[in-house]
Amino acid sequence: MTYCVCMRLNRGLVFMSDTRTNAGLDNISTTKKLFSWSVPGERVITLMTAGNLATTQALVSLLDERSKATAERSPSILQEPSMFQIAREVGKTLREVIQSNAMTGTTASASFGATILLGGQVKGGPPRLFLIYPEGNFIEASDDNPFFQSGETKYGKPILVRAFNPEMSFERAIKLLTVSFDSTIKSNLSVGAPLDYLIYEADSFEIAHESRMEADDPYFSSVSNGWGDALEQALNELPDFTF
Amino acid sequence: MTYCVCMRLNRGLVFMSDTRTNAGLDNISTTKKLFSWSVPGERVITLMTAGNLATTQALVSLLDERSKATAERSPSILQEPSMFQIAREVGKTLREVIQSNAMTGTTASASFGATILLGGQVKGGPPRLFLIYPEGNFIEASDDNPFFQSGETKYGKPILVRAFNPEMSFERAIKLLTVSFDSTIKSNLSVGAPLDYLIYEADSFEIAHESRMEADDPYFSSVSNGWGDALEQALNELPDFTF
Repeated sequence: MTYCVCMRLNRGLVFMSDTRTNAGLDNISTTKKLFSWSVPGERVITLMTAGNLATTQALVSLLDERSKATAERSPSILQEPSMFQIAREVGKTLREVIQSNAMTGTTASASFGATILLGGQVKGGPPRLFLIYPEGNFIEASDDNPFFQSGETKYGKPILVRAFNPEMSFERAIKLLTVSFDSTIKSNLSVGAPLDYLIYEADSFEIAHESRMEADDPYFSSVSNGWGDALEQALNELPDFTF
Repeated sequence: MTYCVCMRLNRGLVFMSDTRTNAGLDNISTTKKLFSWSVPGERVITLMTAGNLATTQALVSLLDERSKATAERSPSILQEPSMFQIAREVGKTLREVIQSNAMTGTTASASFGATILLGGQVKGGPPRLFLIYPEGNFIEASDDNPFFQSGETKYGKPILVRAFNPEMSFERAIKLLTVSFDSTIKSNLSVGAPLDYLIYEADSFEIAHESRMEADDPYFSSVSNGWGDALEQALNELPDFTF
């Protein structure tokens, strides 16, 4: 499967994705699912992919080629005037890739679908987040829905719902996400470390941090090991039940 | 959907189930999913149902009727010599009910399947827990797998995995389950209060507590409201991330 989360904080955007890909339990490997493009001082665009790997790699390659070949008929995401237009372009490209595979007349047991989390900022507008469906349409994050998940979303959701706060620091956001990812990794073998993350500070128009947390990363281990004790504490603080 | 959990503690068994049943978002009602039979001083049997309501009600009615009509050809669960034999009898009855509906020649959009969590103790053996599949076969809880969930299991699982301890008191078990159910109820509309729970103390051969926690129960509210703050605390106790 996959697990990706993107969050809209007051101070900017945070992205985290796992890197496990699999074609059955007996065919597991690591692949990058977080990609970004930027024009320093003007725009930053980040997307995370979930779904059929051939589809998502084709999508990213197409977006990437168009961003370099200025004579392409399809507009580049580096030229679109707003994040909304970028989301439309990504959605349109995604739909085209899926359709081109689905309409070959051959039959496949696998689905060609994919879901994209897209975020970034273009000068003149605020930072925005979108969840793009395989059909190419999309929804946008808002104050009521300040984060999106994709892939195996359920195990890691309760902690996000409870502890998310748009005021929080980037450091705390990464801590929260590490807990959410750890809970998911512990429960679903098709989600796995290393974890890629990216931080975008609002109105900076450059990527603040982009890095990878390995499975044996000391921080990841300390959160994974410490969370059991911390939850024990949290349970202790709740009122006791009496029969 | 449904959410049910049963746990095997050192001091006995704990069962909790939600009570929401639905046939679509526009047809929701409340139904009991936790049932028990006992011969004081000799055996206690409890089961919780998840799945097609017609199937699970037929199953419970059949088990109930046989426990009263001693001349029935099928043996009563009150006469079987062990929990293992009771699980076999429940599984056989479940399979028969499902088959009798599935083989009528009519077509239904709904599945007739159901999953049963069964637990209890018969004099001469220890307390045991089983998860019975629609096909009638089953698995048993062990030291490695000391609890079973059924229905919407994902949202409420991480807290169980982290905080379960076979040494804990019944009061703490109910507190832990309340948190797990609250997380699930917050995320899935097809799981809802009131919550039914039952406590069985090992070697007592009688039900210690059986009761219902309503949605406006002061304890449920205090856990639901307090858990956000407690998690905030738990996050604070983890080491901070630094870029």
